[in-house]
Amino acid sequence: MTPAAVSLDELCVNAIRGLSIDAVQKANSGHPGLPLGAAPMAYAIWKRHLRHAPSQPQWLNRDRFILSAGHGSALLYSLLHLTGYDLPLSEVQAFRQIGSKTPGHPENHITPGVEMATGPLGQGIATSVGFALAERYLAARFNRPEFPIFDHFTYVICSDGDLMEGVGQEAASLAGTLGLGKLIWVYDSNGITIDGSTDIAYREDVAAKFSALGWHVQSVDGMDVDAVDRALQSAKAETARPSIIIATTIIGFGSPNKAGTSKVHGAPLGEEELRLTKEALGLPAEPFSIPNDARAALDARAAGEAHIEVWDSLLTRYRANFPELAAELDQVLSETWDCTSVAWPEFKSVATRKSSHDCLLALANHFPTLIGGSADLAESVYTDLHGMGLQSAQDPNGRNIAFGIREHAMAAAVNGITLHGGCRAFGGTFLIFSDYCKPSIRLAALMEIPSIFVFSHDSIGLGEDGPTHQPVEQILGLRSIPNLNVIRPADGAETAVAWSLALESEDRPTAIVTSRQNLPVVTNEAPAEHPARNGGYVLQDSDGVPDLILIATGSEVSLALQAAEALEGVNSRVVSMPCTRIFDEQPEAYRNSVLIPSIPSISIEAATTLGWQKYSDVQIGIDTFGASGPGPKLMEHFGFTVANVVETARNLLS
Amino acid sequence: MTPAAVSLDELCVNAIRGLSIDAVQKANSGHPGLPLGAAPMAYAIWKRHLRHAPSQPQWLNRDRFILSAGHGSALLYSLLHLTGYDLPLSEVQAFRQIGSKTPGHPENHITPGVEMATGPLGQGIATSVGFALAERYLAARFNRPEFPIFDHFTYVICSDGDLMEGVGQEAASLAGTLGLGKLIWVYDSNGITIDGSTDIAYREDVAAKFSALGWHVQSVDGMDVDAVDRALQSAKAETARPSIIIATTIIGFGSPNKAGTSKVHGAPLGEEELRLTKEALGLPAEPFSIPNDARAALDARAAGEAHIEVWDSLLTRYRANFPELAAELDQVLSETWDCTSVAWPEFKSVATRKSSHDCLLALANHFPTLIGGSADLAESVYTDLHGMGLQSAQDPNGRNIAFGIREHAMAAAVNGITLHGGCRAFGGTFLIFSDYCKPSIRLAALMEIPSIFVFSHDSIGLGEDGPTHQPVEQILGLRSIPNLNVIRPADGAETAVAWSLALESEDRPTAIVTSRQNLPVVTNEAPAEHPARNGGYVLQDSDGVPDLILIATGSEVSLALQAAEALEGVNSRVVSMPCTRIFDEQPEAYRNSVLIPSIPSISIEAATTLGWQKYSDVQIGIDTFGASGPGPKLMEHFGFTVANVVETARNLLS
Repeated sequence: MTPAAVSLDELCVNAIRGLSIDAVQKANSGHPGLPLGAAPMAYAIWKRHLRHAPSQPQWLNRDRFILSAGHGSALLYSLLHLTGYDLPLSEVQAFRQIGSKTPGHPENHITPGVEMATGPLGQGIATSVGFALAERYLAARFNRPEFPIFDHFTYVICSDGDLMEGVGQEAASLAGTLGLGKLIWVYDSNGITIDGSTDIAYREDVAAKFSALGWHVQSVDGMDVDAVDRALQSAKAETARPSIIIATTIIGFGSPNKAGTSKVHGAPLGEEELRLTKEALGLPAEPFSIPNDARAALDARAAGEAHIEVWDSLLTRYRANFPELAAELDQVLSETWDCTSVAWPEFKSVATRKSSHDCLLALANHFPTLIGGSADLAESVYTDLHGMGLQSAQDPNGRNIAFGIREHAMAAAVNGITLHGGCRAFGGTFLIFSDYCKPSIRLAALMEIPSIFVFSHDSIGLGEDGPTHQPVEQILGLRSIPNLNVIRPADGAETAVAWSLALESEDRPTAIVTSRQNLPVVTNEAPAEHPARNGGYVLQDSDGVPDLILIATGSEVSLALQAAEALEGVNSRVVSMPCTRIFDEQPEAYRNSVLIPSIPSISIEAATTLGWQKYSDVQIGIDTFGASGPGPKLMEHFGFTVANVVETARNLLS
Repeated sequence: MTPAAVSLDELCVNAIRGLSIDAVQKANSGHPGLPLGAAPMAYAIWKRHLRHAPSQPQWLNRDRFILSAGHGSALLYSLLHLTGYDLPLSEVQAFRQIGSKTPGHPENHITPGVEMATGPLGQGIATSVGFALAERYLAARFNRPEFPIFDHFTYVICSDGDLMEGVGQEAASLAGTLGLGKLIWVYDSNGITIDGSTDIAYREDVAAKFSALGWHVQSVDGMDVDAVDRALQSAKAETARPSIIIATTIIGFGSPNKAGTSKVHGAPLGEEELRLTKEALGLPAEPFSIPNDARAALDARAAGEAHIEVWDSLLTRYRANFPELAAELDQVLSETWDCTSVAWPEFKSVATRKSSHDCLLALANHFPTLIGGSADLAESVYTDLHGMGLQSAQDPNGRNIAFGIREHAMAAAVNGITLHGGCRAFGGTFLIFSDYCKPSIRLAALMEIPSIFVFSHDSIGLGEDGPTHQPVEQILGLRSIPNLNVIRPADGAETAVAWSLALESEDRPTAIVTSRQNLPVVTNEAPAEHPARNGGYVLQDSDGVPDLILIATGSEVSLALQAAEALEGVNSRVVSMPCTRIFDEQPEAYRNSVLIPSIPSISIEAATTLGWQKYSDVQIGIDTFGASGPGPKLMEHFGFTVANVVETARNLLS
């Protein structure tokens, strides 16, 4: 083949391939198969459809692109480098090295142009639902005829792994139900998984299935740029349903000895096979050499700046035509979520799930782009935004999202809405079902985004539903996730602190953990001044140096207060510790002033004792599964009584 | 309506309904809607199809029945009581009370006749795949023409919540791929969820979807016993594909003011509505009164004993005809998994994932009904049973199960195989993806069954794949689950201990956590005598009382040994702690002899430090996310070096 016979499209596609496999080979680690097979579809999206601006990766109305099959990260880094993002060749050459901007799987907080962290399969497609939902909500709220301020597509490249994962299937079902017409998944159907042919484990009729889920379905030759292009045009034209394009590809295309096999999935080609592959693709042998014509054709910077210019001009005219809306829009664009002027409710001795609801309603009134919902437990978790509509194709203004009994896709969608920008989102379920969405919670923490999760029914105190529904180890499990605030408030005022911290957070997700049962009011400071903002604080003190420190969280704080009262002759201090992570981040002097190291201490939490050894000498908790029975009886049964705390204290002090 | 007009079928169905709603009302807690709507389908299954023996609930060839919609537990307890299981009326009357045999959601280890714990949605249907798989494997291995030793169906009643959950969708896809012809799901399609009409969140064409997944699909009137009966007959006749019967029902049927609404889903009817409902159903007003004709008709004890008699006689003839097979079968029936005569391999300085593979192969050779597989990572996690076939409809003898990229359904299926009896099962994936299957792991622990989970790539040591793939908090998270052994072996010999303990366990699941990277041999005792059986033990000691105790697990044990060597002038003890739970269960004297309370100690584990405060004064670990880079460089970067341990020790001792 002479260079003259190669079209510019082909040259570009092969340039993407070559850069990707060079990066994998230099790292001696990574996945060459996906970039070789999926380069044509990626090129079709990025060159012919994606409206983006490499010089302004955060432009709010950009089309979003998510590589759900994150193991093909080399493909994404090649695209970002070649289209002109701030990702120099030296970074591509440092693929998979400590401190580089090209980690093994994409990470949004590290690399400009990466929309989200992907790699754990299913997360990309599930999160994409949130992106598309945020776009639809913002468009419904702010767009006016001839003023499409929010108007973009969300494109995804996904793999069979994404489609097999439960979270991905939940997301497909949810997107179909919601009728997200601007969501487009391109399925890189290469017939190969790590263990061999996909047939051994995956025999669905994917097209028929997605039709049944309410999707617009097309099947194309994924190696044909023009065919993918045409399918993308049809997908964009279909506005009532999300689209999936099933694109048949050859994994490792170009590799003479490995293409079409699982050998090319997850290991470098090797020097010799790399040479042969480049030869077959008509690429220069020299590593990281990019044909000039391809480089010029792929550079998207000028086009991006033109997009932004058009949008900025639209925005200027919008401001003139709709001054009130524009003021609201500008607040949204500023991405500030300052809670100081929120009209917080008065708090009563109710369950913290109800206090949480009061806070949420106050916040929803204050912030028009705070949206969310629950996994079919709106009336139990108390997440319903009264009178604010149910999000659907018919009512895209609806601020309540019925995620269905799909906790995992809910958490991923909350992440997507949050990542999109312009909106903040919450998702609620019972604390026990945080287990169902843990991977997405973890990803929120890793991605450094302020997703909000509301988990009610937080202990055996929920009662009769029994051990399948009673959290024991979940609070510790959440606390152990790096960069996640887990806040278990003791009463209404602490609940308002939890919500304030959650909204004000910029780079850390929050889990708010609430009770099913009523709890007495024990504090009354306003959220901006409340000492709970320190994570842990002295709620009630004795005269002088205490003899004993009782540390408690949530529903056990009032128990600690009662026990302190009952401990006659003992100078007891009660510490409320709604968030251990924030407490850990306080200055040492503060921490030592709250938990005086030399004073005996007891922690009380209706959950596993494991982990509390960090803060207390003796732990009152529950290290077995719970049981079915009325909540108050269970609390007694498992030792959450004044008598037990008093006895434990007397034993410790003697 | 006069009593004469009521058929016996109707009388029985209403007796089931009445008992269920009385139990809910007496508890003043529970879910009346499902029992009222699903009683006809339950009656059709239990009266006309289910081959079971109430007097011998553990009969191995019984049909299995799983109430996946576990919130309808009152229905199941009614069925168990009325068909003659050891569940007296007094227990039904103690519904949802502490210590009763009728907890809020079904629990197999508490109630005779309950096959598994259900309640967390999706788990029942997903676990049912394992039941059906175990039956097919055992039948393939042991049955001979005219000797159907293993020959039973697995029936499930499920709800829309089950079908929405990701784990349920994974299971549906897996069952279709595997062609499990004796698996029958009856979907109680009542159009109502907690938050209202299912339409708001669930608009799939369920029939078309299941067809696309390779299922046999029927739609029937779920209120019509005969219609359900006929559909069950067709489902049983279809042997190549699993069957789903979409049965349209009216939630809360009979309740004049609440039927067909979400009000009847999860709260008692109330005394007045209960009275009206019973009146509408033609039932006596008196609580817990059961018409004699219904009681007589539903009693299944005599029929059950006849089933067993037939089977026992078949077994006797089988033993005579196939003495060799019968010997193997008898061993299987005895459910003993004694590892003392296993031909363990010799261990080398390889990754513990490879040592684990050697152990697994030795065990698979020894135990013919040990089966399992991985979530598309057989060659990375090392779970492949070489030459033992791939389980499929075409090769039901296959002992390797390709679960696909469906970790959650894998774990649930492993539970199902284990619960079935006759088999033991394992499932493998990367440790990070234990997050994807946590709810099923927890359920195994709650159900007190010895499922085996193999989790490789257990730390940042896995290298370039980066933080999305690097476990940090997962080991702690697993350790915090009550009744789960988490074993992180330091070398091959400890890995053999882990596998021994896993197989020998009768009522506790095990997670075996292995390294991707090579580890040196540090111990060589045979598994039956290895001190690792104590959970933690002194691996290397100093002369006399130590100055310092270094505690480590897995890949960090060899680091501790090197550090002890480098700590000149310090009498250092090295403790290997592969399983904290087993260590915690040792006598206090033993524990204090290993971790001498007065001696300064440092724990070293390439994972979160949280939790280690229980055992050590100072912790070396990683409390942030990992990073992408070569494994050895990451270990250095995060402080897992001799120099850092030595410095930490010197600081502690000074």
